[in-house]
Amino acid sequence: MSIKTVSGGVCAAKGFRASGVHCGIRKNRTKKDIALILSEVRAHAAAVYTTNLVKGAPLTVTKDHIADGFAQAVICNSGNANTCNANGIEIAEQMSELVAKELSISAKDVVVASTGVIGQPLNIEPIAAGIPMLAKELSANGGEAAAEGIMTTDTVKKEIAVEFTLGGKTCRMGGIAKGSGMIHPNMATMLVFITTDAAISAEMLEKALKHDVQSTFNMTSVDGDTSTNDMVTILANGMAGNAEITADGADFAEFMKALNTVTVYLCRMIAGDGEGATKLLECKVTGAATEQTAKTVAKSVICSSLLKAAMFGADANWGRVLCAIGYSGANVDVNKVDVAFRSAKGTVAVCKNGAGVEFSEEIAKEILLEKEIEILVELNSGDCQATAFGCDLTYEYVKINGDYRT
Amino acid sequence: MSIKTVSGGVCAAKGFRASGVHCGIRKNRTKKDIALILSEVRAHAAAVYTTNLVKGAPLTVTKDHIADGFAQAVICNSGNANTCNANGIEIAEQMSELVAKELSISAKDVVVASTGVIGQPLNIEPIAAGIPMLAKELSANGGEAAAEGIMTTDTVKKEIAVEFTLGGKTCRMGGIAKGSGMIHPNMATMLVFITTDAAISAEMLEKALKHDVQSTFNMTSVDGDTSTNDMVTILANGMAGNAEITADGADFAEFMKALNTVTVYLCRMIAGDGEGATKLLECKVTGAATEQTAKTVAKSVICSSLLKAAMFGADANWGRVLCAIGYSGANVDVNKVDVAFRSAKGTVAVCKNGAGVEFSEEIAKEILLEKEIEILVELNSGDCQATAFGCDLTYEYVKINGDYRT
Repeated sequence: MSIKTVSGGVCAAKGFRASGVHCGIRKNRTKKDIALILSEVRAHAAAVYTTNLVKGAPLTVTKDHIADGFAQAVICNSGNANTCNANGIEIAEQMSELVAKELSISAKDVVVASTGVIGQPLNIEPIAAGIPMLAKELSANGGEAAAEGIMTTDTVKKEIAVEFTLGGKTCRMGGIAKGSGMIHPNMATMLVFITTDAAISAEMLEKALKHDVQSTFNMTSVDGDTSTNDMVTILANGMAGNAEITADGADFAEFMKALNTVTVYLCRMIAGDGEGATKLLECKVTGAATEQTAKTVAKSVICSSLLKAAMFGADANWGRVLCAIGYSGANVDVNKVDVAFRSAKGTVAVCKNGAGVEFSEEIAKEILLEKEIEILVELNSGDCQATAFGCDLTYEYVKINGDYRT
Repeated sequence: MSIKTVSGGVCAAKGFRASGVHCGIRKNRTKKDIALILSEVRAHAAAVYTTNLVKGAPLTVTKDHIADGFAQAVICNSGNANTCNANGIEIAEQMSELVAKELSISAKDVVVASTGVIGQPLNIEPIAAGIPMLAKELSANGGEAAAEGIMTTDTVKKEIAVEFTLGGKTCRMGGIAKGSGMIHPNMATMLVFITTDAAISAEMLEKALKHDVQSTFNMTSVDGDTSTNDMVTILANGMAGNAEITADGADFAEFMKALNTVTVYLCRMIAGDGEGATKLLECKVTGAATEQTAKTVAKSVICSSLLKAAMFGADANWGRVLCAIGYSGANVDVNKVDVAFRSAKGTVAVCKNGAGVEFSEEIAKEILLEKEIEILVELNSGDCQATAFGCDLTYEYVKINGDYRT
């Protein structure tokens, strides 16, 4: 069985329409600031949420709404996080009700999400004006508009769709995501909306999502800040007509494979478009005694401000990789560690058994000047592996975040 | 009893001489790159070390040398960390032997430290040439030269000395420190050398140091990277003539107070001179149920890249404070949290009971444009408190670390 990429984003799967418009939350009228996704029929739904104790009001409302395993629409605004506001829950519920009324569905079937500044009251008026506009614009070609509507400091829209086969039936799955700051491992680390027409029970859908995020969104860090508003949701409306997946097996494995294709693509998009980033970094740890060790090491390396700054400068300062491994908290024999940098321009080994090896600074520079860099860490202590996704640290990151609110 | 500031740095206490020279480890001949401190008599010694699994060779050697509770001299070079080098231990031992021979003391009484780039072999030749120069320059006025000799990316030298009284005898204590990157809580987070003429047993000296660092150096973060080479050492030569402190009591309390004066001063110096920093940040957490909660919250806030960037931009983006509290891992009722920003220009309350309050952006900007900013977090859940020391995140940090090795 094979998985192929198709166009259409969140509308690639049967029965999904979407839209995105500017409703006035953001001052810049050329920027869309609200998006809607609708499934023709009620869909099984699952989500994972931030582990931050400070949670955006929309998350609380969404959690309640999908507790029964169903959802039919997603409403998401950018420009304001609706977090740390006294009336946050009320506003998020109002958003659901407005969508429900406009689309003639149940308010309890609406997933609500907000992203943007924390702690500024969210005015319902532009949203109330925007929802009828969104409903009117809903279309099977609206995936791209929806992807644009959820962007914050993102510089590119993030969408993907794939086609795969379950029991002879062609299924599709698509996703959109927004980055690009306040992104850190150990939670669902961004806003991601995935749609599929595959038939799968709510239980198996949740199982698939929870398993997948461990190696994808939970391994992605832009700046070490775990946001208050992040969630990843998936809606599966069953319109592909396959026999519903209700247990482990070949179909579930194929579904997981499709899901992982979508999520890894979005993780790489999010990391590569991290605030101010000029490079996508992937730390690939191999030879670990346990998967947890591999993950801990990969995350520690990808989160090191010093390494991130060195990558920005295309400086093969591998001592910072060793340093980050050393303070990761993982139980590693540092005298067995090998490190190399790899890109489209080739591979350069820089450290063997925990000590430096001679290498050409010129070749290293050429390799590190590429836009996608792999940091290869071989622990030589077992068979487990993990990958973490991140980006470099740049002047632009500081600029973006030095005066974000104005 | 009172503690007053005096001049002289590490030479303020009786019987200590110091020096710093350029020996050739650094290319820039105007920068000193090696420092020496000598006590007239063998001194009780204690140290705390980095928790990084990757440890600089000098730390291993120092640990061995002061295992008997004694030291007489400190040798420290900058420009090269002597870490992740196959012959690191050998070089560090050679440094001790060269010092011992030159000063006619035991090599086992030498504290060795190195700071700079990781993973580049350290050539003993410039050091062998520098040690006789250092010995010749040794002087009771050499504290400043020593403070300069250990600087890396530091922009200002860091030294302080205080005078206090134990049992009617005047005692002195002085310290020097180097920052300014790769500094993070949960370990002895930098190179700090403290000298005192107070008489105190090796056991009580270690107890004092270990207790003090918990609220000072372990609460200081510049960039979240826990270095491989950090240590804080203290030498107490007893030449003040006070009755030796051998147990808890009033004298020990006074000694601790003097030590804390020295260490808090150095922490603030280190944080304020963090790589690229334009501001010293102090997060003061009060009203915590436990001291650990207060510390965890304070450290999380001071480490947030997003908050650090906002402080650089003098932007009162308090949502990022709440966010960092929420993901700190501490058990906090976020609905009880109050936040304010304070500087020499005044105080502005920005959050009450976890939600925003109206405030003047103009006044907030004026307060945040100052060089020293306090972030006040009241948890309203108990009587415990803690302070963490840090700095803002700036373009310059990225610049310094984008091409550190060249």
